[in-house]
Amino acid sequence: MKLYDCTTAPSPRRVRIFLAEKGVTVPLVQVDLRHGEQLGAAFCAINPEATVPVLELESGTRIADIVGICRYFEETHPAPPLMGVDAKDKAVVESCQRWCEREGFYAAMEAFRNATPGLKDRALPGPENYPQIPALAERGRARLQHFFARLDMRLRANEFVAGARYTIADITALVSLDFAGWMKVKPPPSLEALAHWYERVGARASAKA
Amino acid sequence: MKLYDCTTAPSPRRVRIFLAEKGVTVPLVQVDLRHGEQLGAAFCAINPEATVPVLELESGTRIADIVGICRYFEETHPAPPLMGVDAKDKAVVESCQRWCEREGFYAAMEAFRNATPGLKDRALPGPENYPQIPALAERGRARLQHFFARLDMRLRANEFVAGARYTIADITALVSLDFAGWMKVKPPPSLEALAHWYERVGARASAKA
Repeated sequence: MKLYDCTTAPSPRRVRIFLAEKGVTVPLVQVDLRHGEQLGAAFCAINPEATVPVLELESGTRIADIVGICRYFEETHPAPPLMGVDAKDKAVVESCQRWCEREGFYAAMEAFRNATPGLKDRALPGPENYPQIPALAERGRARLQHFFARLDMRLRANEFVAGARYTIADITALVSLDFAGWMKVKPPPSLEALAHWYERVGARASAKA
Repeated sequence: MKLYDCTTAPSPRRVRIFLAEKGVTVPLVQVDLRHGEQLGAAFCAINPEATVPVLELESGTRIADIVGICRYFEETHPAPPLMGVDAKDKAVVESCQRWCEREGFYAAMEAFRNATPGLKDRALPGPENYPQIPALAERGRARLQHFFARLDMRLRANEFVAGARYTIADITALVSLDFAGWMKVKPPPSLEALAHWYERVGARASAKA
């Protein structure tokens, strides 16, 4: 088994934190995103979607999706549970994770990819090129501020994003905040519940993964 | 238990098809998206994200996410399985579902919301207004054609999107194709594997849900 990774990229970091929380170690293979290795023929033979992370199982099956990979380890290493413990909880955690991804992670990606000079024509990950849209970079920044405000509201009522327990939703939210920080987009200090949560989850050993 | 729905909208249709495949009936409450009921105070008290579908459980807990709702029913009504049967299969199905959603469903939403006159300032679902970006409508249309081509390639090797079994990934792909059809964006007839798959899944009773 091996995990195609890139230590500097937010997407594979979501999987690395998940694995660290599970206490699972998987051999990592670095893919040089900065120099476009993911778009070369060798890596596209591994993942035609030209993205990391990719988990390769002993059987040869490849899982080329962040949450798909997390699901695999949630099933094979159930403790500690990071994706919910019963039907209702699993549904709540999945909803929260997806909300953080859509409103936070994708917004950060929108802001980053549409404004970074080195990513001209790389406004979306994947094998096709799409030109940057400056208005989309602006929209991403605005969306991130809304995400912070709404996340803060959720965290006033709960210790963690999806309730009383640390879950995959916290991982997505943490990585989204750090990703937003690349563009100097940060929550205002008035969002105290968010600030306290960030301090707590950022202090976990897994956050260094 | 009740499901906040809108019979004409693609997002709740994904849940309705899932329920039909499970043979589960849930009382539906219609939300009038066309006249902005989702943005009114009454519905925002139910779901501050101002979106349907929302599942309300007997306990009062609300699940305001398409796949979160599906997860709930997958857990409470495991047969027939629509989200995978073992660790590897669950990971593959989740990856395929998410790929169809990202590359197909979101692309159709991008094309639709950024070009529809009645959706000025509603370029994204949710409580905030964002202006339409014409370049994004164009990008959505281009992305859909790539989605069709890549989906066709997957379907040359498999009877269904995630392998030999009908799953939630087929539901997402079917609804994405129908959504794209609203904008007259259709797969070229040369994509025969896709055309045969569409005929097969479109003929299932659940497709009428």
